[in-house]
Amino acid sequence: MSLDDAATKPHDRLAEHLAADMERVNLLIRDRMASQHAPRIPEVTAHLVEAGGKRLRPMLTLAAARMCGYGGPYHVHLAATVEFIHTATLLHDDVVDESTQRRGRPTANLLWDNKSSVLVGDYLFARSFQLMTETGSMRVMGILSNASAVIAEGEVLQLTAAQDLATDEGVYLQVIRGKTAALFSAATEVGGVIAGAPEDQVQALHAYGDALGIAFQIVDDLLDYGGLSEVIGKNTGDDFRERKLTLPVIKAVALADAEERAFWVRVIEKGDQREGDLQQALALMQKHGTLQATRAEALDWAAKAKAALTALPPHPLREMLADLADYVVARVS
Amino acid sequence: MSLDDAATKPHDRLAEHLAADMERVNLLIRDRMASQHAPRIPEVTAHLVEAGGKRLRPMLTLAAARMCGYGGPYHVHLAATVEFIHTATLLHDDVVDESTQRRGRPTANLLWDNKSSVLVGDYLFARSFQLMTETGSMRVMGILSNASAVIAEGEVLQLTAAQDLATDEGVYLQVIRGKTAALFSAATEVGGVIAGAPEDQVQALHAYGDALGIAFQIVDDLLDYGGLSEVIGKNTGDDFRERKLTLPVIKAVALADAEERAFWVRVIEKGDQREGDLQQALALMQKHGTLQATRAEALDWAAKAKAALTALPPHPLREMLADLADYVVARVS
Repeated sequence: MSLDDAATKPHDRLAEHLAADMERVNLLIRDRMASQHAPRIPEVTAHLVEAGGKRLRPMLTLAAARMCGYGGPYHVHLAATVEFIHTATLLHDDVVDESTQRRGRPTANLLWDNKSSVLVGDYLFARSFQLMTETGSMRVMGILSNASAVIAEGEVLQLTAAQDLATDEGVYLQVIRGKTAALFSAATEVGGVIAGAPEDQVQALHAYGDALGIAFQIVDDLLDYGGLSEVIGKNTGDDFRERKLTLPVIKAVALADAEERAFWVRVIEKGDQREGDLQQALALMQKHGTLQATRAEALDWAAKAKAALTALPPHPLREMLADLADYVVARVS
Repeated sequence: MSLDDAATKPHDRLAEHLAADMERVNLLIRDRMASQHAPRIPEVTAHLVEAGGKRLRPMLTLAAARMCGYGGPYHVHLAATVEFIHTATLLHDDVVDESTQRRGRPTANLLWDNKSSVLVGDYLFARSFQLMTETGSMRVMGILSNASAVIAEGEVLQLTAAQDLATDEGVYLQVIRGKTAALFSAATEVGGVIAGAPEDQVQALHAYGDALGIAFQIVDDLLDYGGLSEVIGKNTGDDFRERKLTLPVIKAVALADAEERAFWVRVIEKGDQREGDLQQALALMQKHGTLQATRAEALDWAAKAKAALTALPPHPLREMLADLADYVVARVS
C-alpha cells in the first residue's frame, strides 16, 4: 500500500490546504530544472519530478512556514530546494542500488544511463544551493548544507553496513536518520526558521520532522517484508535480495539460535540465497515477533512526532501534520 | 609532460609564496573530510586528496585574496571549498568515464566501487557548501553555487556532444568553460570578493580564471594527441578512443574532404576503430594543421588571461599568475 491509496489521506488535505503555494513550487521547479545548453538535464529531471511523486517533503516546508505565520515568498524557494535535493538523491540512489524501477516507471539510469543520472543529480544539487542562496538566510543554508552532508554520510554508512550481520539497531538508526530523516527534519526546520518562529518552535519542528522521517523509513523497511501480512507480494523481499540489514532482520538476527544464525550468515553475509529462503526469513521473523516489534517502534516514533507538535500553537496545519504521523504508520495493517 | 616536471615552475613559486596559507588549507581539508560514522568517506577522499595533486585551484583563491590585500581567515575556507568541489567532480568524472587511473594511481571507483565514488562525491559537495556557508558571504555562495551548476551542465553537455560530429567549436567552448574554466574563474573571483576588492578587480580576476581555465583545458586536449610531437606516447589517444570531440578533431572534421569525413564518421560516430586509426587521425590533423591551430588558440587564451591581470595592482603574486598563464601553454612543446 502506498501513501496514495488509503481511505484517510492527511496528505491530500495538506495538498488541498497548500495548493496555491504548491503551484508556485511546481512552477519554480520547472523553471529551475531547465538548462539552456544541455537538454538532457530537463529530460531526465522531468522524468522523475513529473512522475507523480507525493511532494511530501516540500509540503512539510510549506506547512511549517505557514503554521508559523510566514507571509513572504521564500518558503516556496525552500520547498523547491528540498525537492531538488530529494530528486538528486533519488537519481544517485538508483545508480548505487542499480535499480530499474521507481514509482512504477523505469528509472533514469535504465532509460538513459548511469552517467546521466550521476551528472544530472549533481546539477540538481547545485541548483538547490542556488535556490537556497536566494533566500538570503545564512541559517537556512547552514541547516540544508548540513542535511546534505548527513544524507550522503547515511548512504555511505548503509553501503558499508550492508551484508554485515554485526549491524545493530544503533547503526540502523544512524543510517535511516541520515538517508531519510535528515531531509524531513531540515524541511520542517527551515520552514520555521524562514518564518522567524521562536527557537522552541523551530526545535519542535525539527524534532517532528526527525521522528516522522524515522517512522516513515521503518515502515518502508517493514513493508519491504510485506508488513504484517503473511502473503508474499510482488514487491516483497527487495531488501532481502540486496542483503540490507533493516530492522526486522536485525531484530531476528539478535534473537537467532545457532542454526538460525547460520541461515542469516549464509543468505545475508555470504549472499548464497536459494529458493524458499525468503519464506524461511519471514518465518523466523514471525517466530521471534520481529515484524510486530518493528511496527511498535514505528508507532513510538510517530507518537514522538505528534508529541513534538504540542510545542506549536494550534493551527489546522498542525492537526494535519499530526494526522500525517498516524497515517504514515497506518500503512502497515 | 605534466605541470610538475618543467624547468620553469611558476606553480612552485606560488606554492612557496603561499606555503603558510596552504598549510592551513590542508589542515582544514583533512579536518572536514573526516566522518564520525562512515570511515569509508575519509578513506576514499584521502586516496584522491593526498595523491599529490597540484592544488592549483585552491592556490588561485589564496593568491587572488592575498593580492587584493585580504587579512582575514576565510580565504582558507574558500580554498578548501574549491578543492572539495574539484575532488567531488573528479570522483564523479571517473565513474562517468569508467576511468581506471588518475594521477598515476588506480581510481577510487576501481579500488572501492562506483557506489562509493558517487556517494563520497556527494558528501564532499555538501561539505563544500558547509564550508562556504561559514564565510557568511552571500555573494561568495552565489558565485560558487552557480559555478557548481555550470560544471555539471558542462559535463552533461560533453556527454551528449560525444560521438556527435556536429559538435562545433562553440559547443566545445561551452563544454570546457563548464567542466574546467567555471571552477578556475570562481576560484579567483571569490578570492577578490572575500577581500572586498573593487568591482573592476573582481571582474578582472574572474576573466583571468576563465581564460586560464580555457587555455588549460585546450592544452590538455592537445596533449591527449601528443601535443605537437609526432610520437605516439602511452597516454596518447584516450579522447580518441572515447570518441570525444575535442578541438583538434573538431577542426580536422571541419576541413575534411568526403573521404576524410567518412573516416571520422566511422571512428567517432560509429565507434568502429581499427589498428592504425589513431595514426590516421593524427596524420589528418597534421595535414590540416589543426594541432598547430589548436595551440594557437591556447596561446590566445593565455594572452587574454595575462591581459586581464593588468587591471590589478602590481604585486609579486600578480607576476606569478601571469607566468602561470604562459606556463600552462608552454606544456605543449
